[in-house]
Amino acid sequence: MSNPSLLILPGDGIGPEVMAEVRKIIDWFGAKRGLAFDVEEDLVGGAAYDRHGTPLADETMARAQEVDAVLLGAVGGPKYDDLDFSVKPERGLLRLRKEMDLFANLRPAVCFDALADFSSLKREVVAGLDIIIVRELTSGIYFGEPRGIFEEGNERVGINTQRYTESEIDRVARAAFELARKRGNKVCSMEKANVMESGILWREVVQKVHDEDYPDVELSHMYADNGAMQLVRNPKQFDVIVTDNLFGDILSDAAAMLTGSLGMLPSASLGAPMENGRPKALYEPVHGSAPDIAGQGKANPIACILSFAMALRYSFDQGGEADRLEAAVNKVLADGVRTADLLAQEGVEPVSTAQMGDAILAAL
Amino acid sequence: MSNPSLLILPGDGIGPEVMAEVRKIIDWFGAKRGLAFDVEEDLVGGAAYDRHGTPLADETMARAQEVDAVLLGAVGGPKYDDLDFSVKPERGLLRLRKEMDLFANLRPAVCFDALADFSSLKREVVAGLDIIIVRELTSGIYFGEPRGIFEEGNERVGINTQRYTESEIDRVARAAFELARKRGNKVCSMEKANVMESGILWREVVQKVHDEDYPDVELSHMYADNGAMQLVRNPKQFDVIVTDNLFGDILSDAAAMLTGSLGMLPSASLGAPMENGRPKALYEPVHGSAPDIAGQGKANPIACILSFAMALRYSFDQGGEADRLEAAVNKVLADGVRTADLLAQEGVEPVSTAQMGDAILAAL
Ligand SMILES: CC(C)[C@H](C(=O)O)[C@@H](O)C(=O)O
Ligand SMILES: CC(C)[C@H](C(=O)O)[C@@H](O)C(=O)O
Repeated sequence: MSNPSLLILPGDGIGPEVMAEVRKIIDWFGAKRGLAFDVEEDLVGGAAYDRHGTPLADETMARAQEVDAVLLGAVGGPKYDDLDFSVKPERGLLRLRKEMDLFANLRPAVCFDALADFSSLKREVVAGLDIIIVRELTSGIYFGEPRGIFEEGNERVGINTQRYTESEIDRVARAAFELARKRGNKVCSMEKANVMESGILWREVVQKVHDEDYPDVELSHMYADNGAMQLVRNPKQFDVIVTDNLFGDILSDAAAMLTGSLGMLPSASLGAPMENGRPKALYEPVHGSAPDIAGQGKANPIACILSFAMALRYSFDQGGEADRLEAAVNKVLADGVRTADLLAQEGVEPVSTAQMGDAILAAL
Repeated sequence: MSNPSLLILPGDGIGPEVMAEVRKIIDWFGAKRGLAFDVEEDLVGGAAYDRHGTPLADETMARAQEVDAVLLGAVGGPKYDDLDFSVKPERGLLRLRKEMDLFANLRPAVCFDALADFSSLKREVVAGLDIIIVRELTSGIYFGEPRGIFEEGNERVGINTQRYTESEIDRVARAAFELARKRGNKVCSMEKANVMESGILWREVVQKVHDEDYPDVELSHMYADNGAMQLVRNPKQFDVIVTDNLFGDILSDAAAMLTGSLGMLPSASLGAPMENGRPKALYEPVHGSAPDIAGQGKANPIACILSFAMALRYSFDQGGEADRLEAAVNKVLADGVRTADLLAQEGVEPVSTAQMGDAILAAL
């Protein structure tokens, strides 16, 4: 049997630096745990634009469809700010999401005990926080047509379309309920059904999926503005939150920041099962390309390493190995090893990206 | 000269209770400061639906267009959850905003010193916070067409349209720059120009208005997801934030919750100047109708009272009297008077809605 295949797309900014550490971890699992992967690397985002004039080459897209999982670093940077919308680095990422049909984006917001004081929120509000946002990722206002900037009378108008079909809502709701069953068994669905018809349909379908197939899971509905408030007020009230693409973008970033350690948070984007039973999957850190610190060896590789842990769990059914990797990360943190982003006090010396990777390897 | 006119719409839930306290304050200004208003009261939201079968009667709408300012309590409640979308309580409020063309919604997020410990954020992160979000209020996805739930193939699809013209962006940008000049002289504009064409147009027009007419104001642009993060991480970096209707809904609620005292925050919704030079205006608390505590005399009337202070400032050019009212509120808080929502510790007795109103009157 051939090894499972991984396509690595480091992308822009700190992407390549953090991905280099993930490569070490992948190699370790091959050498020490008999979990060898066939790894290939390619370009995405600004890096792909620089080479090919497009943020994702067709060949790269085709390979992404074939491999067992894609690992992505980050895309974007000021260098590309003035590019035409159609070739911006972000379009490469959005194309991957759309063409692989990765409809369920899982974004955990976990507060690491050793880092709880690092949050801008009070320790008691965030310590022990462990929630996950399931964001719909392939539809909504990100992809709806018509869209664009049009002439109208003697001025221009900018238009985007929020659009959700019943089946799109149905499948992401199921992903959320399945996940909840493995956790706290609670789902909160967020929309603006008081203002948007798409939100009314969203609420209705989520309720129907619940009543028909997941009556054992506790379901509540909340307006997204109240959701933003409640995340700030008392995030621990939640277990799984399910919401649309745009609300998910904003609410998951707010939730990530609650934990105080953005450089720690991974994400998984999952689609339908492939022939081999594995879901189409892309794993990436929640943080961006951080152009301000790129190339300096300062970036925290943990989010990207934990994204690989999610790959072990969700793509390769290696929950035990994922636990092992997460435990190594926790040990290193408990030992006080810190990249610059995790330094609350003066006096402690930060380690480099590579030193953090090596410390995690050693802990493994 | 006749007195300036006020239309009071207490609405639903705690609306009538908190508005009763505002009436006392209005009367005080008439009796003691020679600032008499012609006050009339009417129905909005569920209360209007119960009487008229519509959340805003045409006669009420017509009066709102004629008066110098509208004061609104709150709308909505579980009793109306199953009403058809077109007659939901919220539609009454949305109709007022739209037909009065109240395009600039000013939402201060101010952390009151006496209440800083009440925030879920650390004191040092929020103490002294004084930012204001200018939310576009009459366009975007709240009002864009097409909208609705449609049949498509053998399923339904929910559709809403985000839509911004150059002139809509232009006028709200101007409102933000004007406001910034009276404050910290800094504007941060938020959108998702990396994903939405309407965001690209937004960014472009805000930049143009800045360069042509407000080059002295410091302008920055931020993606709305990063904006949500930055509000949680370090809200004091902002002065004025300008954003669209939907992002503004979510971000201003998150910002309000940072302060820890939602029951304290007023808002103003302003339109174009009327013939008498005053802007079309509606003032309302940021909090909702709080059906869980309605009718119990527990609600905090301060947000609604401070909304009247905003009316004094923005509609009636009585900044000095607004300061006086705000000072009275601060004094009462410093004295330790607290409604139930402001009680962090056990042992302190909460005052009722009416007692809080009376305390503020006494401080005046
Ligand atoms: C980079 C950008 C297109 C993307 C998004 O808006 O989805 C990012 O913010 C994210 O959340 O993954
Ligand atoms: C009540 C509702 C329609 C409203 C909105 O979404 O605008 C409210 O949340 C607000 O922010 O004033």
